[in-house]
Amino acid sequence: MTASVLTVEGGITAPLGFQSAALHCGIKKSELDLVLLTANSPIPAAGLFTTNLVRAAPVILSQQNLKKSGGHARGIVVNSGCANACTGAKGWENAQQTAITAARALGCQSHEILLASTGVIGVDLPIELTTAGIKTAATALTRDESEAASRAIMTTDPFPKEHAVTIQTKTGTFTVGGMAKGSGMIEPMMATMLGFLTTDAQVPPALLQQALNEVADKTFNAITVDGDCSTNDSLFALASGASDVVINDSNYQALLKGLQIVSKHLAMEIVRGGEGATKLVAITVSDAKSKDEARRVARTVANSLLVKTAVHGADPNWGRILAAAGRSGVTFNPSLATVSVGGVLLFEHGMPHDEASSKAGLHLQGDTIEIEVGLGLKSGFSATVWTCDLSAEYVRINGEYRT
Amino acid sequence: MTASVLTVEGGITAPLGFQSAALHCGIKKSELDLVLLTANSPIPAAGLFTTNLVRAAPVILSQQNLKKSGGHARGIVVNSGCANACTGAKGWENAQQTAITAARALGCQSHEILLASTGVIGVDLPIELTTAGIKTAATALTRDESEAASRAIMTTDPFPKEHAVTIQTKTGTFTVGGMAKGSGMIEPMMATMLGFLTTDAQVPPALLQQALNEVADKTFNAITVDGDCSTNDSLFALASGASDVVINDSNYQALLKGLQIVSKHLAMEIVRGGEGATKLVAITVSDAKSKDEARRVARTVANSLLVKTAVHGADPNWGRILAAAGRSGVTFNPSLATVSVGGVLLFEHGMPHDEASSKAGLHLQGDTIEIEVGLGLKSGFSATVWTCDLSAEYVRINGEYRT
Repeated sequence: MTASVLTVEGGITAPLGFQSAALHCGIKKSELDLVLLTANSPIPAAGLFTTNLVRAAPVILSQQNLKKSGGHARGIVVNSGCANACTGAKGWENAQQTAITAARALGCQSHEILLASTGVIGVDLPIELTTAGIKTAATALTRDESEAASRAIMTTDPFPKEHAVTIQTKTGTFTVGGMAKGSGMIEPMMATMLGFLTTDAQVPPALLQQALNEVADKTFNAITVDGDCSTNDSLFALASGASDVVINDSNYQALLKGLQIVSKHLAMEIVRGGEGATKLVAITVSDAKSKDEARRVARTVANSLLVKTAVHGADPNWGRILAAAGRSGVTFNPSLATVSVGGVLLFEHGMPHDEASSKAGLHLQGDTIEIEVGLGLKSGFSATVWTCDLSAEYVRINGEYRT
Repeated sequence: MTASVLTVEGGITAPLGFQSAALHCGIKKSELDLVLLTANSPIPAAGLFTTNLVRAAPVILSQQNLKKSGGHARGIVVNSGCANACTGAKGWENAQQTAITAARALGCQSHEILLASTGVIGVDLPIELTTAGIKTAATALTRDESEAASRAIMTTDPFPKEHAVTIQTKTGTFTVGGMAKGSGMIEPMMATMLGFLTTDAQVPPALLQQALNEVADKTFNAITVDGDCSTNDSLFALASGASDVVINDSNYQALLKGLQIVSKHLAMEIVRGGEGATKLVAITVSDAKSKDEARRVARTVANSLLVKTAVHGADPNWGRILAAAGRSGVTFNPSLATVSVGGVLLFEHGMPHDEASSKAGLHLQGDTIEIEVGLGLKSGFSATVWTCDLSAEYVRINGEYRT
């Protein structure tokens, strides 16, 4: 089954059945810092959360609520400026209070509310301000303010990130929308990735979770800015069903396609907006024994400081790429391996193609870089990981912001 | 058995029975680039080599020769300026030729020669220059030029690294010497760590290898500059026996102590001389389930860009330290964990000690930083990993050297 795709305006509220409100409640000094995203009733919801052992209160509460509700939610409260992480019993109470306030304002159960927070770690959420903000937001819900929502979840992201597409299938048209914030540092603590996907397709909770897992695997989980993984990372999907397109085996691929396009767009924007990033780098590893091994090699290359700085300096340094692959823990025969940059073969049969170096160097002067590593197992598996270059600006942002 | 230790001059030739010569043979433009280190006859030798799948020809040849000789060597040829890595069949021939030349000059078997190369990857070793250099070096061997040797193995190391100690035991006095080069970038390729240890204690090959493994574990293998691991990393130990102190069960600890002191000194110098490094950072993880788990957490914290930049900026950012520990793959209870910086407790019982922040910040302004993470398992295992901070200078050295 083929599905035709059209990019549309409207971000997270482009799909039917969703409303949002964004406002400044006072967590930050003057910028937008609170978003309420709602459906008209409790609808199927899915979530993916940080694998860090250290999880913020809103992460733990969202995981519990999804379980309690059997994968349903009426709304999501997102705040920026405070991560509500490492805040002990008080942090947990504040998270519960936030959910209760939103549930009362929307007329639902508190376990039908999901939470996401991003910002300073180890600082208490100003609960009076948040409570007042939620009450106001609940009276200001609209389909026309997705852009404000995508701004209100930012920390030091250089630009807001939202996207939406309609998917035409034989059984009807549905829409997928989304917004995300990336690995922007917020003084004085750490980065958080948050992602929100909405669709008006009708998808049962278990299938929505399956689709979210599949899509995240190739998009949000295939990007890396600095290899760090936060206490608050969360990705949510909500399905309102308002388009009346029922997702089943015959059109599941169309749902995947819609979620994938929106997620890929947002994930690439997160990398482009990485701290100090000047280049988007796609690292594709092919001819591997398994998809996992291909991804492991790609991730090791992506997180190599020597590779990231070489890309920043437009240096076609195949030696650093090969050496990163060689220490990934994946077994391969280096003399069968190949390294290409921008489609230019720089290394094969255990030796360099020095004559190709300047052509690869030209490619590296662009802002979208392709690195390919072949592991020599013909018709093997492949995987792509996206990252950004490492610039002195990254060090300045992360090391010198207090000065 | 206690052993008293005295620091002495003389580096790798401080122990009896060793000679060295260092010269400029023409691999580099004008600096010293070749070292010949010899014993008077084939003596017990041990080696530890890169775990990277991509290994340079001299690494492979040294591994083969140690096997063939049953752990004996007459001499080591070290060159800087060319890694002889990723150079195919010609690279292998050049390595063999180097060993043959040295063996003829010294009057031994070619498998009694060990090799180490550091420098540009993917470039052929200028074999005529190297051959001529070895012949000249063999006529210039002396006990008085260890400092020149420690300079000749440098690439972009900011300073040479050598150390030596005498160990007094009940059964006599022996000496341990050493030199190393660190993770300095050489245009246009990558970093290599090389280490050379000598002793005039009498140690059988198997015991020497065991001692080298034990000592490397706590020194050279417990440091990390950027997590990258090169094609050429090698560590050698040679035991001449010239002191007549025989190492056995009763004084094995004294040998370990000597090797450990010299290795620790050199390893710390490598970190201090790391690219762009301004601070030496010791990360100690305690109260872990096993030594391996403690080390895994310490290494994850040590390689976290967010931690390294925070240290550079003198920011007592316990959140980044805790979050790095939390993503290490090691299981622990965050609410039992503690984080201290410079002995100042910043996090315990799941919450921060904000009042201690400025005191920890003062410690971070120094050049020797202590970070401690407790995993909450009382009387558990601990491990220390040393690293350096991440500065904008690192990015400049590794990304912009072509401009």
